[in-house]
Amino acid sequence: MKKAVIVGYGNIGHSVLEALQTAPDFEVAGVVRRNVPDKLPIELTGIEVVSDVNQLSVKPDVAILCTPTRSISQEAKKYLALGINTVDSYDIHQTIYDLKIELDAAAKEHQAVSIISAGWDPGSDSVVRALMLSCAPKGITYTNFGPGMSMGHTVAVKAIEGVKAALSMTIPLGTGVHRRMVYIELQDGYTYDDVANRIKSDAYFASDETHVIAVDCVDDLLDKGHGVHMTRKGVSGTTQNQLFEFNMKINNPALTAQNLVNVARASFKQTPGAYTMIEIPVIDLLPGDNETLIRSLV
Amino acid sequence: MKKAVIVGYGNIGHSVLEALQTAPDFEVAGVVRRNVPDKLPIELTGIEVVSDVNQLSVKPDVAILCTPTRSISQEAKKYLALGINTVDSYDIHQTIYDLKIELDAAAKEHQAVSIISAGWDPGSDSVVRALMLSCAPKGITYTNFGPGMSMGHTVAVKAIEGVKAALSMTIPLGTGVHRRMVYIELQDGYTYDDVANRIKSDAYFASDETHVIAVDCVDDLLDKGHGVHMTRKGVSGTTQNQLFEFNMKINNPALTAQNLVNVARASFKQTPGAYTMIEIPVIDLLPGDNETLIRSLV
Repeated sequence: MKKAVIVGYGNIGHSVLEALQTAPDFEVAGVVRRNVPDKLPIELTGIEVVSDVNQLSVKPDVAILCTPTRSISQEAKKYLALGINTVDSYDIHQTIYDLKIELDAAAKEHQAVSIISAGWDPGSDSVVRALMLSCAPKGITYTNFGPGMSMGHTVAVKAIEGVKAALSMTIPLGTGVHRRMVYIELQDGYTYDDVANRIKSDAYFASDETHVIAVDCVDDLLDKGHGVHMTRKGVSGTTQNQLFEFNMKINNPALTAQNLVNVARASFKQTPGAYTMIEIPVIDLLPGDNETLIRSLV
Repeated sequence: MKKAVIVGYGNIGHSVLEALQTAPDFEVAGVVRRNVPDKLPIELTGIEVVSDVNQLSVKPDVAILCTPTRSISQEAKKYLALGINTVDSYDIHQTIYDLKIELDAAAKEHQAVSIISAGWDPGSDSVVRALMLSCAPKGITYTNFGPGMSMGHTVAVKAIEGVKAALSMTIPLGTGVHRRMVYIELQDGYTYDDVANRIKSDAYFASDETHVIAVDCVDDLLDKGHGVHMTRKGVSGTTQNQLFEFNMKINNPALTAQNLVNVARASFKQTPGAYTMIEIPVIDLLPGDNETLIRSLV
């Protein structure tokens, strides 16, 4: 049994706890939270919750980082320096490679392994995207997201003057084009027209078809379902019109958490350094012995 | 540029030639055929075609085995003994692991790499199957094949008394259940009823819904298209009803050949031994540098 510590305890942290408890090869070493509340949620009964990893009674083998994306680099380096493997779901696509280089050095220095950006996109979708590209090296892949809540767009709307609460849903229109359905509660003293115009002219929304809808209670609309529809049409060798498609309809934090636990497992099979999911064999994500897995899956 | 030799020149061998010629990082070292015909097909103009690999003017880095599945073990060991990597699309699911063990020893002895069963199923489908399992460890995966020609079933029909020519199409009915549409030309002196009964009671067909149709010319029905519809419904952590789906509609030999060229490329990045596709990182299937690939795919 490997010992995993959960770092951060929001939606993802909670789902990671569930995924660790159902995994046959992990035990929960504890939870690290910036502020330890006096009253813990019921599911943490019997689990050590501390504000610093050194306070845990056992040293974890791997830290599953469930803190905000922008804190990942700093958090990962802290655990790697202790010789503890790290995994995360860092999701700023543009800077994933830079994070890899940064953590690769830290991991190698301390003989540890870091697997980064291992949610579902980036993450398991990346594996499918790479595989589809390999199957038809010429052609176009479209990744269509949703219907589901966009965390980034929701945060962007919340920052706009006059918005009290917000939800931005991503609706797939095909060929990678998305509609934004933005649900808001207005702050007192603001008009719908003014606020809707501000949202539509924001950089996050200006280039997409955006609908702004005022509602009484945004919270009533929240659900954690999400989806992906990925397609590739391309050429294998010189043969045209090869068609590939990957779809999923999933609970967002649950899949992110499952993937994080899978790469935590895989981290023990890699040589020191930092990896993205496309750089590790898929068999390493699974519990059980290789013979059984190969006989049942290949 | 890596030098690849094509071993065997049927449908797959021909498609491998096309895939190698479109790959940016391979050159064709030659073709090895059991019997070298006097008149070569036009596409082999300027390519060395020999009956023994030692007759080639350059030593290949990798042998892409396009010979029948039952010859793979013997052919692979011949090339591995020369220190040449091998790849194949061995497709008898039940004995893939045994082949791996056998070739693993041969590969390690000669410091070479063998990647086996790397067509599309087994092959790229296996990668998707393993990934889907990892995303929802509890649940059921169904792999539905077709519509497309089943090589194994067609060979089985051809072996039945009274059959002059045959084609067995696999039709997906969902949940891994398949209908067999069998098209035959009757031999003179045989009746449709007798032959159809023999086919339906053959072990290959007895447990499937099978329709036998007599036609004037089986050859007129042949096309190389095939398809897969794979689904998984399962549980991530403790969250039920996670839905995953992978579909493809493809030219069968073209995709097999592309995958073989991809694993030929990947063979140079593995340590000596034998591997299935789920044991190698998908990034290794692709040409180009890792930074560019990670920045564009993850």
